[in-house]
Amino acid sequence: MASRKNAFYAQSGGVTAVINASACGVIETARKYRHKIGKMYAGRNGILGALTEELIDTGKERAQHIAALRYTPGGAFGSCRYKLKSPEENPVQYERLIQVFKAHNIGYFFYNGGGDSADTCLKVSRLAERLGYPIQAIHVPKTVDNDLAITDCSPGFGSVAKYVAVSIKEAALDVTSMAKTSTRVFVMEVMGRHAGWIAAAGGLAQEKEGDAPHIILFPEIPFDQAAFLKKVQQSVDRHDYCVIVVSEGVRTAEGKFLAEAGTRDAFGHTQLGGVAPFIANLVKENLKYKYHWAVADYLQRAARHIASKVDVEQSYAVGKAAVELAVKGHNAVMPTIVRQSDQPYKWTLGVARLADVANREKLLPRDFISRDGFGITAKARRYLAPLIQGEDYPPYRHGVPQYARLRNAAVPKKLKAAFQI
Amino acid sequence: MASRKNAFYAQSGGVTAVINASACGVIETARKYRHKIGKMYAGRNGILGALTEELIDTGKERAQHIAALRYTPGGAFGSCRYKLKSPEENPVQYERLIQVFKAHNIGYFFYNGGGDSADTCLKVSRLAERLGYPIQAIHVPKTVDNDLAITDCSPGFGSVAKYVAVSIKEAALDVTSMAKTSTRVFVMEVMGRHAGWIAAAGGLAQEKEGDAPHIILFPEIPFDQAAFLKKVQQSVDRHDYCVIVVSEGVRTAEGKFLAEAGTRDAFGHTQLGGVAPFIANLVKENLKYKYHWAVADYLQRAARHIASKVDVEQSYAVGKAAVELAVKGHNAVMPTIVRQSDQPYKWTLGVARLADVANREKLLPRDFISRDGFGITAKARRYLAPLIQGEDYPPYRHGVPQYARLRNAAVPKKLKAAFQI
Repeated sequence: MASRKNAFYAQSGGVTAVINASACGVIETARKYRHKIGKMYAGRNGILGALTEELIDTGKERAQHIAALRYTPGGAFGSCRYKLKSPEENPVQYERLIQVFKAHNIGYFFYNGGGDSADTCLKVSRLAERLGYPIQAIHVPKTVDNDLAITDCSPGFGSVAKYVAVSIKEAALDVTSMAKTSTRVFVMEVMGRHAGWIAAAGGLAQEKEGDAPHIILFPEIPFDQAAFLKKVQQSVDRHDYCVIVVSEGVRTAEGKFLAEAGTRDAFGHTQLGGVAPFIANLVKENLKYKYHWAVADYLQRAARHIASKVDVEQSYAVGKAAVELAVKGHNAVMPTIVRQSDQPYKWTLGVARLADVANREKLLPRDFISRDGFGITAKARRYLAPLIQGEDYPPYRHGVPQYARLRNAAVPKKLKAAFQI
Repeated sequence: MASRKNAFYAQSGGVTAVINASACGVIETARKYRHKIGKMYAGRNGILGALTEELIDTGKERAQHIAALRYTPGGAFGSCRYKLKSPEENPVQYERLIQVFKAHNIGYFFYNGGGDSADTCLKVSRLAERLGYPIQAIHVPKTVDNDLAITDCSPGFGSVAKYVAVSIKEAALDVTSMAKTSTRVFVMEVMGRHAGWIAAAGGLAQEKEGDAPHIILFPEIPFDQAAFLKKVQQSVDRHDYCVIVVSEGVRTAEGKFLAEAGTRDAFGHTQLGGVAPFIANLVKENLKYKYHWAVADYLQRAARHIASKVDVEQSYAVGKAAVELAVKGHNAVMPTIVRQSDQPYKWTLGVARLADVANREKLLPRDFISRDGFGITAKARRYLAPLIQGEDYPPYRHGVPQYARLRNAAVPKKLKAAFQI
């Protein structure tokens, strides 16, 4: 038992409705391998916690609170937007990480994030080996953007996708009820600065020809104002209304974000508004239709109340698999989702080498977008539909969800030197 | 049976997540009183359908589709923003209504709306009598704004309230996870142009001292920029982050809407953005915190997927009660919700005279707002909490809710003259 190593888990980057389900999978599974894995520490505010030696002892949490992570959105231990520089640029950071890991007898590093953190995870693994303190580094995939390579989908995406599809379906019923005398055009802005996966998911609200959304604007398709306005006009002519999903990352042909291309406020600052008000205004200026717009922002990626059951299961499964891979001796790998069939949807777990995942971005394939650039194809639908299947409701008390509240007890520091971030 | 009159039901004004539950209550109950009520017609696009003689025969819908209205958001027959002028100003409108009612042997008028439509309902009842074709006019209460007089709450409000409380709770978990290195301040804009009921409901997300929301901005309290910024600063100092709920109707001390008081775009137009981006920018300019903002807009009032069970039950109940009142011979009345106790929450139905309801607006009482003007009191909490109790999930298929799709079969017109709106 003396050789038994402790483990470190950290959440990285933007959190999701289900990243804690992965944490739950990691912690619950580690507890089953007590003969191999000693304590399970978590980084307070992600990798920052490792650098500053602010570790949380998840062993102090009761089993029922860890179980509650499965249905709790956000990052239960804190996450951060902090990318380690390359070891050449900033070797001190990596040396510090290894020092902290060494001080706390940490032999397993579970890093729960997107493409950037897969890269960090890989670097930590390589550096640790070079510095003579080998660590098994396993990446746990997570991103609402669905842009991770190799894995069929990214845990976190399915739930945002479901939120967007459900929201569009509901808002469209509102708009169509009143289109004769009120709002004709409704614009909903969704996340996705580089890839249009989330915007595409809005297309799942459409079950029949003529259903909303009538237009989807993708970051992959340069914005063509004339074609767009023509399409809006057509939709209103045919259906009395027009529902538009717009990705925050939509750009002009020159590559400029629409949200920034537009207007300035009275002080000359770039306008605060997102792209939804910009698009809505464009419609009003040119077509005179009454409009409304919504910007879901964090609501979409925090909406655990309407999470996809498939997504929750996959998020838990990759957490569990990460620990099992570690126990089996793997290093510098990431569990992946492997699709076996679309309908009925079947999936299993696979393994990818981090070298193949790190810093690669999976854009929406062109054949997922309809020829006119304003909708999704049957192929996209086949891919997307299974990912929003099933509901997985959290428990409620007094009308609001009862999400986990952890103690997050600090592990006493062992190093004398503080570390300046 | 020859004396059996037909009925007319219309939806009025902004639709809600549960106005169709009232329609369901009206139609299902009318079907039980076939010996008293003949056909149940609905107005296509609300009262416009009555004026233009565009009636829908709800008798052509199968029972299961009518039952599905209970969990379908939006207005299934169409609604409109169209206020009848006073009979003195525009007697022709009322005469036309009576003509249409007479032509289709309509003796019952069920009008499902807010304060304005209660007034219309009353006028129709009075005019009908004066014109020698008496009609029993019953108002069915509905408004997300919760500003109807006499009734303890307005059907439609509880579901928006729940959506806002749940959304704030979830988004707050996201923000607090990352506040150390990312967003510190999150602003969510909610509906309520005159009354702060919906904003107040955001306060239900708070279960413990320090929980979000940290600040609520009400239309009832003139915006005090200095006090607001100080409060934001305090919240970030104490909790690392600050979550703000802002009502769209927040005004300056001079009575100007904040959303309009602010900035202009490059072309000199008033800025498109709502009040959320305005508030977020204020924080950034003065305190330099990184911010995010969301504008839920129609999503909040269409969010049937997270409707309040209490609200759904009450919405159905007032529809049912309206028909029962009609059958008993009542006229110019509205069923109301009467609260019997807060905890456990008990309610029953009452009846109000339309003359007491019409054109009155119930603002948030000052003692529901904390002394500093930025939160809700225990009294507000006692009132609000029961209204968001319980979940009432719609059925799903392929990951999205299966909402009713009605045939909305047209009733053949009987009048020769068309009516110009």
